[in-house]
Amino acid sequence: MQSNNIYKLREKSPLVHNITNIVVANYTANGLLSLGCSPIMSNTIEEMYEIPAISGSLVINIGTLNSQTVLSMLKAGKSANKHKIPVVLDPVGVGATTFRKETVKTLLSQIKFDLIRGNIGEIANLAQANWNSKGVDAGKGEADLSQIVKDVAKQYDCIVAMSGEIDHISDGLQVAKIYNGTPLFPKITGSGCLLSAVCGAFLTLDGDSFDLTVSACTSYAIAGEVVQKNLTDTQTGQFYVRLLDSLAQLDDKTVEKYAKVSFD
Amino acid sequence: MQSNNIYKLREKSPLVHNITNIVVANYTANGLLSLGCSPIMSNTIEEMYEIPAISGSLVINIGTLNSQTVLSMLKAGKSANKHKIPVVLDPVGVGATTFRKETVKTLLSQIKFDLIRGNIGEIANLAQANWNSKGVDAGKGEADLSQIVKDVAKQYDCIVAMSGEIDHISDGLQVAKIYNGTPLFPKITGSGCLLSAVCGAFLTLDGDSFDLTVSACTSYAIAGEVVQKNLTDTQTGQFYVRLLDSLAQLDDKTVEKYAKVSFD
Amino acid sequence: MQSNNIYKLREKSPLVHNITNIVVANYTANGLLSLGCSPIMSNTIEEMYEIPAISGSLVINIGTLNSQTVLSMLKAGKSANKHKIPVVLDPVGVGATTFRKETVKTLLSQIKFDLIRGNIGEIANLAQANWNSKGVDAGKGEADLSQIVKDVAKQYDCIVAMSGEIDHISDGLQVAKIYNGTPLFPKITGSGCLLSAVCGAFLTLDGDSFDLTVSACTSYAIAGEVVQKNLTDTQTGQFYVRLLDSLAQLDDKTVEKYAKVSFD
Repeated sequence: MQSNNIYKLREKSPLVHNITNIVVANYTANGLLSLGCSPIMSNTIEEMYEIPAISGSLVINIGTLNSQTVLSMLKAGKSANKHKIPVVLDPVGVGATTFRKETVKTLLSQIKFDLIRGNIGEIANLAQANWNSKGVDAGKGEADLSQIVKDVAKQYDCIVAMSGEIDHISDGLQVAKIYNGTPLFPKITGSGCLLSAVCGAFLTLDGDSFDLTVSACTSYAIAGEVVQKNLTDTQTGQFYVRLLDSLAQLDDKTVEKYAKVSFD
Repeated sequence: MQSNNIYKLREKSPLVHNITNIVVANYTANGLLSLGCSPIMSNTIEEMYEIPAISGSLVINIGTLNSQTVLSMLKAGKSANKHKIPVVLDPVGVGATTFRKETVKTLLSQIKFDLIRGNIGEIANLAQANWNSKGVDAGKGEADLSQIVKDVAKQYDCIVAMSGEIDHISDGLQVAKIYNGTPLFPKITGSGCLLSAVCGAFLTLDGDSFDLTVSACTSYAIAGEVVQKNLTDTQTGQFYVRLLDSLAQLDDKTVEKYAKVSFD
Repeated sequence: MQSNNIYKLREKSPLVHNITNIVVANYTANGLLSLGCSPIMSNTIEEMYEIPAISGSLVINIGTLNSQTVLSMLKAGKSANKHKIPVVLDPVGVGATTFRKETVKTLLSQIKFDLIRGNIGEIANLAQANWNSKGVDAGKGEADLSQIVKDVAKQYDCIVAMSGEIDHISDGLQVAKIYNGTPLFPKITGSGCLLSAVCGAFLTLDGDSFDLTVSACTSYAIAGEVVQKNLTDTQTGQFYVRLLDSLAQLDDKTVEKYAKVSFD
C-alpha cells in the first residue's frame, strides 16, 4: 500500500473537532497531537455551530452521552454538513441500551455521515446481525463480517470501518481487509475511539473516502504492531503510552513496509 | 492467603458498571481491562436502569458529582438492588463539602450497598470520628482504625474497606488488616477509585463478600508492591503506567506469595 | 534564580481547587500530586462556595465549559475573592468561539484574577493583537510579545504569563523571559493547563505574585527540559509520563542550575 498520507497529514495539521466521552478525551487528544494534528474537544452547545465551521472534520463519539450532548451532536453534525466537512460516527456500545440505539438512529437520520467506525459488536448491531456484544466491548459471535460491513455501508450510504482481529472496511461495493494490528488493542480503553479520530483526521486529506479510511486504519494498526514487537501481551500500560510514541514516529515508509491489506 | 480469585476473575470477565468522575474514568477503565474485566462507564440517566440489569456489579464514585449525576446514582443503585448485583460506594472527599455529605447520606438511605471503600479521612467522616481530612486526600489524625471500620460496617450493615498505610476491612464483626502496598499509591490520582472498581469486580465472584473484599484489596496492594520494587519513590508517572502492567500480569500465585494479612 | 519555593511547596502541600476540563483533569491532578500538592477537581455548583473557602488557591480553566460550569466558575471565583485566595485564569482557546470570548469577558469582569496564564494565541486574543490561533492551539503570527503581555497585565491589573518557545511574564511594568523548556510541551495535551495549576500552587506561597509566577514557570519548564535530555522529539507518550516523574523529583538546586531567565 503506497501513499504519502502520513506526510500530508503532518504537513496539513488539520483541526479535528471531537465530541467525545470523559473516558477517552485525553487519549484521543494526545493521539491526534502525536500524529501532528490539532485536536479540539468540545460538546458545548453554544459553540457547536462555530467549531465545525473552522475545523477540517468532525468526529462524534457516543461513549458517555446524555440528553444535552445529543443536542450538541445534532447541532455540530448539521453545521459540519453545511460546511461540507467530513463527519465520522463512533457508535460506542450502541447495543448496550435503548438510549444509545435511539440516539444513533436519530443521529443517522439527521446527519449525513461519511464514515461509521466501530467494533464488531457495534457494527453488527447496526446491521441487526446475530452477535453477542458485551457492554461497550466487542463480544463474540459467528457472522459473515464482509457481508455485515457491506450491508451497513449500503444502508447508510457511507464508508463503514469495523475493527477487530481483522479490520473490515467497505463503501458498499468493495471490502478491504486489514491483517495488521495486535491483541493489545482491545486491552486498553479507547483504542477504537482514537482510531475513529484518526480516521477523521485522514478524511481531511484530498482523496477518495474509502481509500483514506483504509489508509488510516492500516497506519493505526501498524503503529500498534510496531509497539508490540518490544512488549509482552501483559504490558498494557506500556502499550498505552508507547502507542503515542509510535504514532509520533510513524511514517509512510513504515506503513508501506508492513501493510497487509486485501481487497474483495 | 490462598485463593484462585484472579484466575476466576479473568475467566468470568465480568461487566462492571462504573458511575465515576472525570478525573479517574480513563484509569479505572484501563485498570479493569488489565484485570480482564469489561468496564462500562456511564452516568446517563436514560440508561441507569438497563446497564445494571446487564452488569455483574455497580460501583458508585462521588468524585465529581452534580445534581444530575446524583439522580443517576440513585436510579442505577435501585436497579442494581432490584437485579441483585453487588453495589460499591466510594465516598470521595465526603468530608470536604456539605453537598457531598448530604449526597452520601441520601445514597446510603436509598440504596443497599454491599461495600463502602474509602480512605481513612472518608471512612472516619462516616464514623463521625475525629480526623482531619484535606479535600479529597486522606489527611492525618489519631484514631482507633479497627474500631472505626467496624463501627461503620455495623452502622450500614455492609463491608467497609478503609485504605491507608495498612488497609482495614470489616464486616462489623471481624477486621482484616493488610500490610501490603506502597507509599506511591497516594502519590497518583485515582488509586483508591480504581481499587473500589476492582472490589466491584471481585464481588461478582461466588463467595463471601468479606473474603472477596479482602482478596481484592490484597491483590491490588500487591500489584502496587510488585511495581515499586523497580522504581524510586519519585517515579510517580512510571508507577501510574506500570500498575496497569502489573494488574495485567498478576496471578494468584504471586498474591499467595506476598500476602501479609492478619485477622482480628 | 535562587529560591526555595519547591521545598516550601512540598512542605506546605497546599490544597489547589481546579475547575477544569474533561481532557486534562486527570493529568492536572497527577501533576499537582507529583509536586506534593493536594488537588481537588470540582465544578459542582453546590460546593463552589465551600471548596475555595478551604483551598489555598483556585484555578479556572475554560477548556470544556458549558453554561452550567460558567455559573460554577463565577460562584467559585467570588468565593475565592471573598476568602482572599489567589485565582488563576486559563482562557483555553478563547479565540476559537464567541461563547469562549464572552465567557472570558464575563469572568474577567466579575472576578479579580491574580494571574492569567495562556499560550500566545490566547493572550494575543485578550490583547486584540494580530495573531492566527488555531482552535485551542497556539498558532502562528508576528507580534511584539513583550508588549502584548505587558498590555494585558495592565488592562486586567494582574500578572500575565504567556507560554511559548520563550515564556513571557509581566505585571504590567517589568517583563521576565524564560528561555527554558522543550519543543515536546506543545506535542502533549494539557501541558499548559497543568502549568496554570502549578502557578496556582506556587501562588499559595508567601511572596510577590510576579516572582512566584516566574518561579513556577521556570521550574515547570526545567522539569520538561530535564526529561527531554533522555528522549527523542517523537517520544510524546514517554514525555507525558516522565514529566510527572520529573515534577516529583524536581528540587530548588536543579532549578537554580538550569534557569535561564532575563528581566526587562
